[in-house]
Amino acid sequence: MYTLVLANKRYSSWSMRVWLLMKEFDIPFKEELIRFDSPDFASRVSDYSLTKKVPLLLDESLVISDTLAIVEYLAESHAELAIWPTDKQKRAKARSLCAQMHAGYSLLRNECPMQFDKVYKRFTPSELLRKEIASFSSIFLEALSQSDGDFLFGEYSAADAYYAPFLSRFDSYLLPLDDRINAYYAKVKMTKSYQNWQQDVANEKEDNTESSLYSSLDDVRD
Amino acid sequence: MYTLVLANKRYSSWSMRVWLLMKEFDIPFKEELIRFDSPDFASRVSDYSLTKKVPLLLDESLVISDTLAIVEYLAESHAELAIWPTDKQKRAKARSLCAQMHAGYSLLRNECPMQFDKVYKRFTPSELLRKEIASFSSIFLEALSQSDGDFLFGEYSAADAYYAPFLSRFDSYLLPLDDRINAYYAKVKMTKSYQNWQQDVANEKEDNTESSLYSSLDDVRD
Repeated sequence: MYTLVLANKRYSSWSMRVWLLMKEFDIPFKEELIRFDSPDFASRVSDYSLTKKVPLLLDESLVISDTLAIVEYLAESHAELAIWPTDKQKRAKARSLCAQMHAGYSLLRNECPMQFDKVYKRFTPSELLRKEIASFSSIFLEALSQSDGDFLFGEYSAADAYYAPFLSRFDSYLLPLDDRINAYYAKVKMTKSYQNWQQDVANEKEDNTESSLYSSLDDVRD
Repeated sequence: MYTLVLANKRYSSWSMRVWLLMKEFDIPFKEELIRFDSPDFASRVSDYSLTKKVPLLLDESLVISDTLAIVEYLAESHAELAIWPTDKQKRAKARSLCAQMHAGYSLLRNECPMQFDKVYKRFTPSELLRKEIASFSSIFLEALSQSDGDFLFGEYSAADAYYAPFLSRFDSYLLPLDDRINAYYAKVKMTKSYQNWQQDVANEKEDNTESSLYSSLDDVRD
């Protein structure tokens, strides 16, 4: 059985991508959760991978140390599941969307760190962040307009799991989101995987991570 | 036939990855080079993709707009070529290495923009950049130590094409590089694809891009 090494569900947006995907496609796995505030976080992650980052997927002695590589490995290992869209052109588009986010949208990802169950009422996006959101919206809307189903490429795929933690920022920081993207996101929030993640966050003990990572926002917390 | 939309070979490290890969694997393609200093750069790239970034791979009406997605598309479309290593575990490792670089090593990629045929004698890496290089080196050396051939995973693969522009910074900014990585990089530099790229850069007319992008380094140019 796979083991997914991940960090706090409230904060670890990269972990969330893989977790949602595996849950939504009913791929069994054990979880090894290493909290960010564990004094031995770095050393425990280093035992598995020199990248020192989560998530990691363990398959017996093999350690896969990046979300996109994990998605590709799962897609290969479970060819019967449409983790990527089955249509070749859609699959290329889905991979483009994921790889773009993997390397881009750094302002939203860095300025609005995922805090899954928090709402910051007074966060004001910078002009650059507004531009990044506008760019994301146009690209995302183009993908949605070509979909023939509830999700980005019809049926639920890796692309939906990939963008779920990204979109959660729009809730947490009360950022403007196009109605059509919001309607799509509402469907993602109704999936069992998303609801299970939400439940796990609710049960997760708060720790000292937030205050150290996001202290600059302390004064605007709801 | 494919069309690869790319930018100046001196500067466009993302273009270089895909170009090297296609040349090394003898995949025929036409080039459409849009210079960064073209007044209509953004609008010409936008005609193909809302991402407004190069490289783009065009396959008839399909536009693929990210290097990792392009690599996956080529690997699928040319299954007879070992663009990714044929061994499943090695393939997962190769994808991990590429995806890590795709999302990471931002200091080296941003502080030392690719200037393929330049040498900056007086560049001093920051402490953080030194740490990033140390992390890269340990991860890269681990991969090299497991290789049973000249390249990262034995035979030349997408991973080698991916890291070639990254490594070119070590030459340009005279950054310290482990001897074993240097020996590997020397083999990459002997490939026909790399030598063809080098020749194309030598023939490329200089433009105004450098002075606008890298003006902070003007005073330390060789």
